[in-house]
Amino acid sequence: MSRLRPSLAAPSVGPRPQPFQAPQGDMAILAGSGNPLLAQSIANALGVRLTPCRAHIFSDGNVFVRIKENVRGRDTFIIQGVHHPVNDNFMELLFWVDALKRASAQQVTAVIPFFSYAKGDKKDEPRVSIRARVCADAIEAAGADRVLTMDLHSPQIQGFFSVPVDHLYARHVLCEHIQSLGISDLVVCSPDVGFAKGASAYANILGVPVVIGNKQRVDHSENPEVLEVIGNVEGKNVILVDDFAITGRSLISMGEVCRERGAKDIYAAVSHGVLSKGAAARIGDSLIRKMFITDTVENPVDPLPANIETVTVAPLFAQAIRSIHDRSSISMLFPEDKAE
Amino acid sequence: MSRLRPSLAAPSVGPRPQPFQAPQGDMAILAGSGNPLLAQSIANALGVRLTPCRAHIFSDGNVFVRIKENVRGRDTFIIQGVHHPVNDNFMELLFWVDALKRASAQQVTAVIPFFSYAKGDKKDEPRVSIRARVCADAIEAAGADRVLTMDLHSPQIQGFFSVPVDHLYARHVLCEHIQSLGISDLVVCSPDVGFAKGASAYANILGVPVVIGNKQRVDHSENPEVLEVIGNVEGKNVILVDDFAITGRSLISMGEVCRERGAKDIYAAVSHGVLSKGAAARIGDSLIRKMFITDTVENPVDPLPANIETVTVAPLFAQAIRSIHDRSSISMLFPEDKAE
Amino acid sequence: MSRLRPSLAAPSVGPRPQPFQAPQGDMAILAGSGNPLLAQSIANALGVRLTPCRAHIFSDGNVFVRIKENVRGRDTFIIQGVHHPVNDNFMELLFWVDALKRASAQQVTAVIPFFSYAKGDKKDEPRVSIRARVCADAIEAAGADRVLTMDLHSPQIQGFFSVPVDHLYARHVLCEHIQSLGISDLVVCSPDVGFAKGASAYANILGVPVVIGNKQRVDHSENPEVLEVIGNVEGKNVILVDDFAITGRSLISMGEVCRERGAKDIYAAVSHGVLSKGAAARIGDSLIRKMFITDTVENPVDPLPANIETVTVAPLFAQAIRSIHDRSSISMLFPEDKAE
Amino acid sequence: MSRLRPSLAAPSVGPRPQPFQAPQGDMAILAGSGNPLLAQSIANALGVRLTPCRAHIFSDGNVFVRIKENVRGRDTFIIQGVHHPVNDNFMELLFWVDALKRASAQQVTAVIPFFSYAKGDKKDEPRVSIRARVCADAIEAAGADRVLTMDLHSPQIQGFFSVPVDHLYARHVLCEHIQSLGISDLVVCSPDVGFAKGASAYANILGVPVVIGNKQRVDHSENPEVLEVIGNVEGKNVILVDDFAITGRSLISMGEVCRERGAKDIYAAVSHGVLSKGAAARIGDSLIRKMFITDTVENPVDPLPANIETVTVAPLFAQAIRSIHDRSSISMLFPEDKAE
Amino acid sequence: MSRLRPSLAAPSVGPRPQPFQAPQGDMAILAGSGNPLLAQSIANALGVRLTPCRAHIFSDGNVFVRIKENVRGRDTFIIQGVHHPVNDNFMELLFWVDALKRASAQQVTAVIPFFSYAKGDKKDEPRVSIRARVCADAIEAAGADRVLTMDLHSPQIQGFFSVPVDHLYARHVLCEHIQSLGISDLVVCSPDVGFAKGASAYANILGVPVVIGNKQRVDHSENPEVLEVIGNVEGKNVILVDDFAITGRSLISMGEVCRERGAKDIYAAVSHGVLSKGAAARIGDSLIRKMFITDTVENPVDPLPANIETVTVAPLFAQAIRSIHDRSSISMLFPEDKAE
Amino acid sequence: MSRLRPSLAAPSVGPRPQPFQAPQGDMAILAGSGNPLLAQSIANALGVRLTPCRAHIFSDGNVFVRIKENVRGRDTFIIQGVHHPVNDNFMELLFWVDALKRASAQQVTAVIPFFSYAKGDKKDEPRVSIRARVCADAIEAAGADRVLTMDLHSPQIQGFFSVPVDHLYARHVLCEHIQSLGISDLVVCSPDVGFAKGASAYANILGVPVVIGNKQRVDHSENPEVLEVIGNVEGKNVILVDDFAITGRSLISMGEVCRERGAKDIYAAVSHGVLSKGAAARIGDSLIRKMFITDTVENPVDPLPANIETVTVAPLFAQAIRSIHDRSSISMLFPEDKAE
Repeated sequence: MSRLRPSLAAPSVGPRPQPFQAPQGDMAILAGSGNPLLAQSIANALGVRLTPCRAHIFSDGNVFVRIKENVRGRDTFIIQGVHHPVNDNFMELLFWVDALKRASAQQVTAVIPFFSYAKGDKKDEPRVSIRARVCADAIEAAGADRVLTMDLHSPQIQGFFSVPVDHLYARHVLCEHIQSLGISDLVVCSPDVGFAKGASAYANILGVPVVIGNKQRVDHSENPEVLEVIGNVEGKNVILVDDFAITGRSLISMGEVCRERGAKDIYAAVSHGVLSKGAAARIGDSLIRKMFITDTVENPVDPLPANIETVTVAPLFAQAIRSIHDRSSISMLFPEDKAE
Repeated sequence: MSRLRPSLAAPSVGPRPQPFQAPQGDMAILAGSGNPLLAQSIANALGVRLTPCRAHIFSDGNVFVRIKENVRGRDTFIIQGVHHPVNDNFMELLFWVDALKRASAQQVTAVIPFFSYAKGDKKDEPRVSIRARVCADAIEAAGADRVLTMDLHSPQIQGFFSVPVDHLYARHVLCEHIQSLGISDLVVCSPDVGFAKGASAYANILGVPVVIGNKQRVDHSENPEVLEVIGNVEGKNVILVDDFAITGRSLISMGEVCRERGAKDIYAAVSHGVLSKGAAARIGDSLIRKMFITDTVENPVDPLPANIETVTVAPLFAQAIRSIHDRSSISMLFPEDKAE
Repeated sequence: MSRLRPSLAAPSVGPRPQPFQAPQGDMAILAGSGNPLLAQSIANALGVRLTPCRAHIFSDGNVFVRIKENVRGRDTFIIQGVHHPVNDNFMELLFWVDALKRASAQQVTAVIPFFSYAKGDKKDEPRVSIRARVCADAIEAAGADRVLTMDLHSPQIQGFFSVPVDHLYARHVLCEHIQSLGISDLVVCSPDVGFAKGASAYANILGVPVVIGNKQRVDHSENPEVLEVIGNVEGKNVILVDDFAITGRSLISMGEVCRERGAKDIYAAVSHGVLSKGAAARIGDSLIRKMFITDTVENPVDPLPANIETVTVAPLFAQAIRSIHDRSSISMLFPEDKAE
Repeated sequence: MSRLRPSLAAPSVGPRPQPFQAPQGDMAILAGSGNPLLAQSIANALGVRLTPCRAHIFSDGNVFVRIKENVRGRDTFIIQGVHHPVNDNFMELLFWVDALKRASAQQVTAVIPFFSYAKGDKKDEPRVSIRARVCADAIEAAGADRVLTMDLHSPQIQGFFSVPVDHLYARHVLCEHIQSLGISDLVVCSPDVGFAKGASAYANILGVPVVIGNKQRVDHSENPEVLEVIGNVEGKNVILVDDFAITGRSLISMGEVCRERGAKDIYAAVSHGVLSKGAAARIGDSLIRKMFITDTVENPVDPLPANIETVTVAPLFAQAIRSIHDRSSISMLFPEDKAE
Repeated sequence: MSRLRPSLAAPSVGPRPQPFQAPQGDMAILAGSGNPLLAQSIANALGVRLTPCRAHIFSDGNVFVRIKENVRGRDTFIIQGVHHPVNDNFMELLFWVDALKRASAQQVTAVIPFFSYAKGDKKDEPRVSIRARVCADAIEAAGADRVLTMDLHSPQIQGFFSVPVDHLYARHVLCEHIQSLGISDLVVCSPDVGFAKGASAYANILGVPVVIGNKQRVDHSENPEVLEVIGNVEGKNVILVDDFAITGRSLISMGEVCRERGAKDIYAAVSHGVLSKGAAARIGDSLIRKMFITDTVENPVDPLPANIETVTVAPLFAQAIRSIHDRSSISMLFPEDKAE
Repeated sequence: MSRLRPSLAAPSVGPRPQPFQAPQGDMAILAGSGNPLLAQSIANALGVRLTPCRAHIFSDGNVFVRIKENVRGRDTFIIQGVHHPVNDNFMELLFWVDALKRASAQQVTAVIPFFSYAKGDKKDEPRVSIRARVCADAIEAAGADRVLTMDLHSPQIQGFFSVPVDHLYARHVLCEHIQSLGISDLVVCSPDVGFAKGASAYANILGVPVVIGNKQRVDHSENPEVLEVIGNVEGKNVILVDDFAITGRSLISMGEVCRERGAKDIYAAVSHGVLSKGAAARIGDSLIRKMFITDTVENPVDPLPANIETVTVAPLFAQAIRSIHDRSSISMLFPEDKAE
């Protein structure tokens, strides 16, 4: 369906020459207060020490940050997710970026393992804010040169930034773990139509079918919407997938509908285990046999129940940071996922 | 799942006072060369005459525009879609916006019935451009104060602009038309998981179920992906829905799969009938009984076949322009669609 | 010390003609969750009702705002201070501004009764952020057209914004109240050299002398700094003044030094009574006889003790908003303070 | 050579309706210290009084400006040319614009009768500045909403601004004056190839031929360039034209070459009579019989000699300001010059 | 005419030290679809291979680009002229720039051999766009770090960009070729007053006189303008020069006027041979004996006639790219042209 | 007063590794016409030669600059203070920055030893300009990558820039000189409350008390303000300190008041000796025994009297430039001043 335009590059015969890239200053990895453990894991995976730094909250609620070592001319990465306490973490991120810029870092990469406000990505009601764009503008105004993040609520949010965004997906790590469990008769289930495309990507990695949850009114009456599952789950083991889980309710409801439709075991896998107050217990008591999350979100409000398992994405972030620093290709990290 | 913050507004007892809004200059509607017919229909619906203006293409291929009447202090709307010839139309749009700005219009609204580059909304392959953001930046750099458009490929693209975007949906107009046909046993079908959410919105307006097409590999072999339909279409009349149709191929394939799964009549409804060379004939010869498109895309390359019917969205655009000019609420246009 | 340049305007003989100003849309006052009471008082003083609006915090910590009435073409004022919880309030402010902009308000004025991050106004240590500039950039990026605020930590912060800033001072209101008490032998005391200029302005309004606290090392030894008072307080009633009080400790220490130097009664007056956890009790138990604060900071963490008295600045804000809306001069609000 | 694009506007039959434009605040005209006389003449022509304002130069050389009357919501025009002392005048212009913006004027138009740095419009030597762009950026950064100026050194400089620029030409006023003198056998002469296009425009208004001066090397030797006249001046009265005259030397040299080639009387007409130290006497003593300049440049360093005559452009600026304020078309001011 | 300011640099005695410059990443040259041949010639001249890349036009008219090799940290040059199809080529250029930026190139240089919209460099009619500025803003918004181009319609367009522009002239290459032909009694002729300065530069390189075409009305009647030649061509061989030729008509007309005034052979030399439909035949059939163009414009609509000869500028572009990459001086490329 | 946030960096055990920083191009130091002597001293201290360059003022008052050596890829520092003639110097600075940027310098640092317009740092009267912000915006718009300056009138002005600002203080150099004189019974005196904090910093370095001048009305009558000294000077040697001295009058008056209050010898130390016409004589004839200034301000209008002594800050600037170039920490320059 496309006409190749008549330009196009020379035949690339023979071994590809190794391009030379301008040297960068040393890598400096800083841990914001949102992700101290993940940051340490990433630093360990990279074999570097964290750059000493300090974040306060004063008694009036003001956040204050200070870098405790010279970073002039260095290639800096501040690891600071925007999860609970969301606004404290976001403001701290802005101040880190500004402090690094004013301290004359060569490059400032904002590493945001989970970016909570990505949810606010459109004007779906009258007179609301597109919060993800507000945040993107603030991050750029503060001086970030690039962003590294994971499983944004929609990939379009890359376009909210004018600086380059490297966007990682947790699903390869999670699928590898799921496959190691050897579950038969598996089907992937999206809890709603909004994640249908993401669920389909999971299904393609796992080589299994996909079904999709949908709330709909089945007649013109005033009856409330009913959650249905589009596709067949009878006799299947179901793995519910989503980008994040906050209360766990929509996953549990979806699992229950699947069970009613004849599903066997119910599993779940989400990139970001936000898990607000009460969610951990709710999932622990639910029909979900095992739920897999990653370590992007720290500072849990409740202890995790036995049926929630954490899979680390630190090596993935470490590889991406290494690639950014070395200027090697990040797309190499996902050889099988060219078309995503 | 939310805690109401402790502020909040005064009780709104008694009749709501009518707010006064600062007067705007007269409305001026300009027709770019992409949408002369739609623009005339909109002007007719508004009861205003089009502002005289002229667009050339010189023999060297350069576009040139000129406004032939004073527009200082007026509230201007340039109606210029970005469809075939896409790049000529886009450059013309930029020049109209700049000409209006430099001619001291009070406000410049870019009315883009179809914005073709909205498809380029993410970096889904390594080393490609986010073309929709490039276009949004160019439109804003040229001086647009706001944008009015319809059925963007993803609603997130609103966030690519820092100016306000009013985003219309064609589906209310199309559904009203479909409902007037009185088809029984209807099911809405999305041709892929990417439009699942849009299809679900159609299904909710029509009060019918939704099924979803999906390409997937069913095993780990090297076999190619197979198009499946998730959900049941047996004995149903199917209406395929999408935001646009270019070659018609994916709609036709989806229809064929539905037919194989026992569907009865196959219909289709898309907002933007792009219809590249050969598409009209392809659809005319297909199993699609009737396809509904709107008049956002003009200058068709081929004449339309008998089974394609055009529904006008001019009154909808006229209402939106009137609302923007009068500063009344655009959300009023869709009372039933608050949650979209 | 200046040479008048040779241009200059015509003689302004006869009565000054009343200039005509372009009409503005109706005023719309919105209360953010930081200042519901002050906002209601301002609305009452203006004789208008608050525009219905809503602010949530979701269980994941995300702030969400929605305006519940059409504001297209209106002259909008969002009243949202940046005090405890500082970061929640700041993010909410950004989202209000963006929501108003995208809802096509004619003008968006961010009314920030207390702007906590104004303290972070310089790079006084290596590798820190200039947080007030970061905040100013974010507010402007979100789309604020102007800012109205009170007693910024330093007046230079006006220059951090490229949009106009109207800057109110609480001291006229506070001094009027102090004068009504008829205290004799009064002297104004700044608790440190940083507020010396502000204290001098208080002294000039009250027509009394000023003394200044200073921490200094009196020899070259390693002895710690000692708080001294520069100037004479013996036999005087002292009024300590500052722009804000957080813990109250520096006011109390200063009062104690004054008492040691022979002062009689100790009073205090600060614009913003931030009063973090424990501060109210600390001041209640201190030698301060009476402390005056304004109502810029709401949601106190502890109940106020008997010796703290609140003076309202709502009429002052109402006058300023009225002036901004009517385009009359705000400087008229302070006839006696031309040179500040 | 152009293909009319297929859009295009409705037939404009019947009387053209009068468009309504949103009201503007009262006009406020401010005189900077560069053009007190021209500003007064413009105000007189407009029938308004100048808005009181004041410009100082302190003894340290700092410029300071203050507006002495409320301008909130008004449509303001600051008349401040950038001629000798160029840099003092330019900085004063920036400060006026910022003061007007921060004083909440509805619109700020920078009226720059002569913009000296327009000469620095290209990078014609290695490692120099494009000074006109630097100035344009500074004016826009200060907050100007539009610019009104006259006879820029090249019309392309309009494109250095992203705000609208209204560009007046003095030649209509000067030609009207020349025609009133009834000189026969006239030929227009450009002193160099750079002004050939401008001279041709003069010639077209006057309906006479044009000749062009050119410095060239006539062989490949190291001999210096020689000033020649391209075209025939024998027996002709010559009027030399240019956009500005600084030392007068190039006009005088050109006149001498014309005389050597048989020209009779030599006249000159330039838009901006910059006339640096010594220029007035030099021209007074030259073969130029009469030289016409306008009143864009004030504060002459030397008194004018008898053979220099000043023609006012105040009515032209007044008309343009009136048009900007009333939002009527400025192009109407030059009906015969559509193609310039 | 200038007073040396009292600063100024130290005496530069002794051998000039070789400055060290920070290393750049490897050069990467990409060929857009507008200039595949020129790009290959430039790459050959530089001794590097083209970086693999691909440009599509989809059947809906959307342009799509993809870089097929890692370019992180490299010094990239995208060679893409803006000639026929102008708008397709321009949009492709924007997408290349954005793709390179988002792929983390160290530097992105837009190499635009011919920039067609440079013609739209001023507002010479009411209510038109300054199209060259619109394009410049779009290129910068997309993320270009610098621009390399040739023979812009006016050199002022450098000032439309805030990024550095390196501006090459073809005339040295063309004059060298002309001189090799050994034509006697040569005179350079500009076809209009607009190119008078450019023609004078040609004349200075060739060491011959210049004459200038001019359209003028010779009386005040309504008679149309008549094309005249200012200066003497009798018995001369004439070389017409211009920056580009589209239809060839103005060159041919000018040649005919010269012939009528007694000129012998007519030659022509233009930098950019745009040559719209029919132009090649028109020139082939004309009195022009030989016309010289460069290879900036590819994809000719018609085959070239025998009397048009192409001179390559690839070595010139290669030298400039080498200089940009090595950070050596580009002005060195034109030792004899310091004053241009 | 602060709660340590729970993140935080790894223990920094063992020797701190030396970070590698990306190489910069050679340093290039340029002397603007404002500081030729200081620039030469700085270059000498750095052991480099000044890069040849040239600044003109043409007879029409236009400033013109040209760099006479290739600076592509180099790390450039233009030393150009903004003192008398303030506006000529400021415009020259803008043009240097633009010329360096367009000449493709790797980095442009504006070194502004004295920034006169820093005084205009707030809107302390109605309808004035915040001149320091206007200047900061112009410097950034011209393309400066960073700023190095000394003793800004208020440190908040760093926040007027979005590029990094390195801010030096002269007081360490001046105090070292003062201490070498061995004056006993010293007290530091600020001539007004505005410099109280600065005076306190001097006092802390010198280990002596501080007193503060204040103008105040002592009753409610219309009597003019009286200059008082807050604190005790009886029997003390007084050193008056300030950031700059223009006329010298406020220093002299303050000295006289101190003398009346029993002070012994009066000294003065200011960072920037602006000294407008007559100031040198005035100070020479005054009671000030010795005044110390630095060499930031050149081109004195009058010769210096015997009691004014200049202390050089060239080594301090040289160290700062070396640090910026080498990316070592500038805060290291002031180990004892962490809390300023």
